Amino acid sequence: MDSKVRLHITGPLYGGQQAVLSKDQAHYLSGVMRLSPGDTITVFDGASGAWRATIDAASKRGGTLTLGDRVAPQRDPPDIWLCFAPIKKARTDFIVEKATELGAARICPVTTRYTNSERIRRDRLQAHAVEAAEQCGGTFVPPVDEIVTLAKLLDHWPDDRALIFCDEALSDDPDWSGEGESNPWPPAPAAILIGPEGGFAPAERDRLRAHPQAMAVGLGPRILRADTAAVAALTVWQTTQGDWT
Amino acid sequence: MDSKVRLHITGPLYGGQQAVLSKDQAHYLSGVMRLSPGDTITVFDGASGAWRATIDAASKRGGTLTLGDRVAPQRDPPDIWLCFAPIKKARTDFIVEKATELGAARICPVTTRYTNSERIRRDRLQAHAVEAAEQCGGTFVPPVDEIVTLAKLLDHWPDDRALIFCDEALSDDPDWSGEGESNPWPPAPAAILIGPEGGFAPAERDRLRAHPQAMAVGLGPRILRADTAAVAALTVWQTTQGDWT
Repeated sequence: MDSKVRLHITGPLYGGQQAVLSKDQAHYLSGVMRLSPGDTITVFDGASGAWRATIDAASKRGGTLTLGDRVAPQRDPPDIWLCFAPIKKARTDFIVEKATELGAARICPVTTRYTNSERIRRDRLQAHAVEAAEQCGGTFVPPVDEIVTLAKLLDHWPDDRALIFCDEALSDDPDWSGEGESNPWPPAPAAILIGPEGGFAPAERDRLRAHPQAMAVGLGPRILRADTAAVAALTVWQTTQGDWT
Repeated sequence: MDSKVRLHITGPLYGGQQAVLSKDQAHYLSGVMRLSPGDTITVFDGASGAWRATIDAASKRGGTLTLGDRVAPQRDPPDIWLCFAPIKKARTDFIVEKATELGAARICPVTTRYTNSERIRRDRLQAHAVEAAEQCGGTFVPPVDEIVTLAKLLDHWPDDRALIFCDEALSDDPDWSGEGESNPWPPAPAAILIGPEGGFAPAERDRLRAHPQAMAVGLGPRILRADTAAVAALTVWQTTQGDWT
């Protein structure tokens, strides 16, 4: 049986290769999806496209696959990062899932002065990104970075990367207001920065304002929650500068 | 104390009016937010802007407010409906919350051939829309309709309203592919229709294709989950035809 199941496995992948499944993956194929030896699934490693693979064996103790033909080329997203201050667990998970679907190239959790959650489980968020790519037909999984402070992120900001920041409080500032509505958003390489629910601290705002590559943008007349702002900003960028055009 | 708490109460509202709180609202103000008589909050009824209100009394048994000045005018969203096939409970709740934040004028749950959830709790979804408006500074609450079948929705479709439908399967159809990427999205009055995770049935697709006001749109090269598609489509419409421009 040709199943629609897609699994991310460690590469590099090549035709004829025998690949070892993790216990969780083998259990998922046999116990949850009820697949048997001889059934085919699709696998990808995040770098070399998607491949058809035949199940050799799969049980709750483990399993193996044999790779056949490559069925889709590798497709990387445009070079857009999403930097965001973690919020409540379910909403942080949601941001990672949606950023993967919408084609973020990198996910950077950032702690700011008014961030409530200073810690993240990086491995858990990375697993969410993998699952989103598996579910949504992607061949790319954005890396999820360890959390850094906003100060450190800005200290090491790449010279060539635009920094698009979304801050409701800043939209009210007459010096900045409307900049993002009249000027086009910058092309890749770029990054979107979503502030915490409490906004940026005055010192952080001053630093962002003074940053030569930074640009404040507004996201409409209603106040958006941080998770909504992340999805909306990625959508606007993808439709104007990314690969939706 | 001037609190940032916002509550939706039944209108019409006018200055000097004494308004009765529900038990839940009175408990929220006194027990959760720890507000006392004399403290002020903001109230709105969805139709007459936002008003400052002073707490007269609030306990877990009930309470009253006295309305003062109007502090913000009524602001209605553009005339864009969101029609969607309900999915898992948490994701349906999420769609209603995000549609409210992003400025949908009406939320229409639709059951299609491949919809898993044929029932919704309309009152619960409406309460989610109210809560989203309370949290996000809005003065408008989109009505959530009772669920209808897609067939009935189309039977009674208003002559002047464009129907923008997002269907991954349709994007692959050479007759339709790319239409939404080259043509601009239609202006208000309009509606966005998001199909279920399983896509539309062939008969549904034929009917949508034949519909004189329908237009298929694509949402980029990656497959989006239904909840992501709802947020992305509302964002694209608001930035091109709505009130974000």
